Amino acid sequence: MGKKDKQFVAEITPMEVDFAQWYTDVILKTDLVDYSPVKGFMVIKPYGYAIWENIQKYMDDRFKETGHKNCYFPLLIPESLLKKEAEHVEGFAPEVAWVTHGGQEELAERLCVRPTSETIICEMYSKWLKSYRDLPFLYNQWCSVVRWEKSTRPFLRTSEFLWQEGHTLHETYEEAQEETLQMLQIYKETAEELLAMPVVVGRKSEKEKFAGAHATYTMEALMHDGKALQAGTSHNLAQHFTTAFDINYLDRDGELKHPYHTSWGVSTRLIGGIIMVHGDNRGLVLPPGIAPVQVVIVPIAAHKGGVTEKVDEIFAHLKKDIRVEVDDRENYSPGWKFNEWEMKGVPLRIEIGPKDIENQQAVLFRRDTLEKEVVALDQLKEKVQGLLGDVHNNLLLKAKNMRDEKTYYIKNFDEMKEIMQTKPGFVKAMWCQERECEDKIKAETAATVRCIPFEQEKLGETCPFCGKEAKVMAYFAKAY
Amino acid sequence: MGKKDKQFVAEITPMEVDFAQWYTDVILKTDLVDYSPVKGFMVIKPYGYAIWENIQKYMDDRFKETGHKNCYFPLLIPESLLKKEAEHVEGFAPEVAWVTHGGQEELAERLCVRPTSETIICEMYSKWLKSYRDLPFLYNQWCSVVRWEKSTRPFLRTSEFLWQEGHTLHETYEEAQEETLQMLQIYKETAEELLAMPVVVGRKSEKEKFAGAHATYTMEALMHDGKALQAGTSHNLAQHFTTAFDINYLDRDGELKHPYHTSWGVSTRLIGGIIMVHGDNRGLVLPPGIAPVQVVIVPIAAHKGGVTEKVDEIFAHLKKDIRVEVDDRENYSPGWKFNEWEMKGVPLRIEIGPKDIENQQAVLFRRDTLEKEVVALDQLKEKVQGLLGDVHNNLLLKAKNMRDEKTYYIKNFDEMKEIMQTKPGFVKAMWCQERECEDKIKAETAATVRCIPFEQEKLGETCPFCGKEAKVMAYFAKAY
Repeated sequence: MGKKDKQFVAEITPMEVDFAQWYTDVILKTDLVDYSPVKGFMVIKPYGYAIWENIQKYMDDRFKETGHKNCYFPLLIPESLLKKEAEHVEGFAPEVAWVTHGGQEELAERLCVRPTSETIICEMYSKWLKSYRDLPFLYNQWCSVVRWEKSTRPFLRTSEFLWQEGHTLHETYEEAQEETLQMLQIYKETAEELLAMPVVVGRKSEKEKFAGAHATYTMEALMHDGKALQAGTSHNLAQHFTTAFDINYLDRDGELKHPYHTSWGVSTRLIGGIIMVHGDNRGLVLPPGIAPVQVVIVPIAAHKGGVTEKVDEIFAHLKKDIRVEVDDRENYSPGWKFNEWEMKGVPLRIEIGPKDIENQQAVLFRRDTLEKEVVALDQLKEKVQGLLGDVHNNLLLKAKNMRDEKTYYIKNFDEMKEIMQTKPGFVKAMWCQERECEDKIKAETAATVRCIPFEQEKLGETCPFCGKEAKVMAYFAKAY
Repeated sequence: MGKKDKQFVAEITPMEVDFAQWYTDVILKTDLVDYSPVKGFMVIKPYGYAIWENIQKYMDDRFKETGHKNCYFPLLIPESLLKKEAEHVEGFAPEVAWVTHGGQEELAERLCVRPTSETIICEMYSKWLKSYRDLPFLYNQWCSVVRWEKSTRPFLRTSEFLWQEGHTLHETYEEAQEETLQMLQIYKETAEELLAMPVVVGRKSEKEKFAGAHATYTMEALMHDGKALQAGTSHNLAQHFTTAFDINYLDRDGELKHPYHTSWGVSTRLIGGIIMVHGDNRGLVLPPGIAPVQVVIVPIAAHKGGVTEKVDEIFAHLKKDIRVEVDDRENYSPGWKFNEWEMKGVPLRIEIGPKDIENQQAVLFRRDTLEKEVVALDQLKEKVQGLLGDVHNNLLLKAKNMRDEKTYYIKNFDEMKEIMQTKPGFVKAMWCQERECEDKIKAETAATVRCIPFEQEKLGETCPFCGKEAKVMAYFAKAY
């Protein structure tokens, strides 16, 4: 590597030195995102947006396979609607943006920019639902929402973010519960099979659940710095909103009833998760499923020995099934290009020069292992397709290992405090499930209950934090 | 047809009786859209949204093929940015929604909900653009925008609508002009090849151009009632915004220069166009390219003679290449289903009963011609695919004929007034291009200059409205 190459790498602060600065360096230098003139609002640049499009495509297909249809509800919600469900307004009112004027006129009633759409959607559902024959309602929307946040970081917590929100109605509690868990399962598969990001799934504590929910389910991923990321939630809202919004239907038995209700969402936050689970000190490491460029071809000495022609041929051959690009910029050296594409996290690089053409071969570089291998040209496409799968599997495995290394058991509160101070990660512990205990844990360690996992282990009889009887095993961590 | 069927059809007001009521009946009864609790804001229901998704898919592919990438810019724009380009703020300030409070706090500066994003995007471009090597910038975003409208109608004019907005920067005026016209051409092809909606393309008058544009180009379609619909616009913004926002780059000659700029957009308004160009007194007539359901299969006497099995087989065979649905609802008669799917505009219907199975045939019904034909089962898929193409071509032809019938030449102002009163449509006439004349035409006939078409005809020497020297031929019409 030349001098220029070394300078290139040094632009990203090592994560061991300052993880927050590492994150900021990565997202800005790889052109995922930029800050906007409005504090807390981000601009998603084409490279970042292409990741979101790939996530959208996968998830939208999964939603449609399971019978959901997309629609679009208004951006602005009257204050009176937001107030209809008591817990909901209490949770969201402090963080909404208010529209008070339309054109030159002051509005008779303030409108909030949607922080989430349960209220406006329930208002419409109350108009649409007549009979049990209409059920289930299985609708989703892709949109942006606004929550006025004091402290923000691109992708992880911003005053505006992009997401999808599913809103469904069902005849019975059981069907609503089944839907809630089905969507959580789709989220888990998205995380693991598309993003190579292992997650723990389970239920939120009463304190941490969604404002207005009967029960909230979550998937939680562990980042490189040992902090957890809530990566997607699915809520069984039971009849809380359908009662408040007076949604009724004529049931099979001729009685008017309130349907059961779910909502579920994931957001551009997932991109923050991808960065912090897979990234390293060279920059991004993107899972092949969502990488905007899965393979980059860098010609070496492009003007010699038919390199350009061969590169064009390889490009044309790969293009149909793989997101491939050729970097034929003339004013950059191959070494510079290697570093840039490594920083941008492209899973595979093909290097090909006159020597390679003589030998009917190319060099394949893997971003995840930093390993190179020589491949015969007539096996290139097969090899590339196989390696993209290998990269995914390796990223998922590495992330699982990282998580396991940072997952601890504790015997008492002192151990918990020490872990959270010195080597944060997931702590698995029995818990009494009491609010007072939960508040104390947070106050003294900054950790919160991330979830009560579906996969329970019996680690003891008492709550190690307060000594009372243990009810469940839970995951605790500091969180984004 | 039974009694029930006749009632069904009668629910839509005939367009000859009341065109506006016909439109409202169609959009509500076919479940495209609903009114929301906030005046002027619409809910796009799944059937309407699926049309938009099909339009998006086609256009997004076209944009990407021509080198454009998607990104996302913030929803909220500071008032100071909106004010930077003088004509722009004058045009948009009267119709924006203002956010004045975030959570409990009053904001130091008001933020407007984007009515269009030139200002926020130019602010970011001024940060990103450094060198001629960075050009062109070819970016697009899909989002919703808000314009506070006094009088609204779903899809055609609403206070919030969904659209795409492309924003590009170029080195030269010529390149910007080429981009402006290229995108207009893509819009025209979308209208004609996807939506079967013929359009006239040309330039807007100075009065009608976009606030802040150097020149606005438009495509204009003619509706059943003889009113024009501006269906998409593409603006050459020259250096108006890039100067106001101080966007500079270091050019090849070492000088700092302002780039040239374009923007272009189409919206959910296109759906209103589809309805009013193709619809009839039975309801929607959807072009196959965007129909959420291209073919519906209605089993007759489903429990007899292996009908269900055969329907499943046909469905499985068509499904891979065609958007097909089976209507196997038990509590509706075939006649009721026929009427409902006709109202919903599904291009083709397959009817199949025990007799058909005996004869190895099915009945194919075309929504556009209302004609039925019997088809051998082993040729069904080929036939369906061929007919979907025929339906498209026929819809386009019918719409062209309708437009031609409603396109008039005039000799003087009196003829113009009479046409606009008695049989509105497009009027092609020479024009002086003076603002005073334009204002007078609008005041006396309610018609506006729709565009100065690229295809000019020399119809005379003088402006028939004011007698001055004619400069161009223009299309005039009342418009949505």
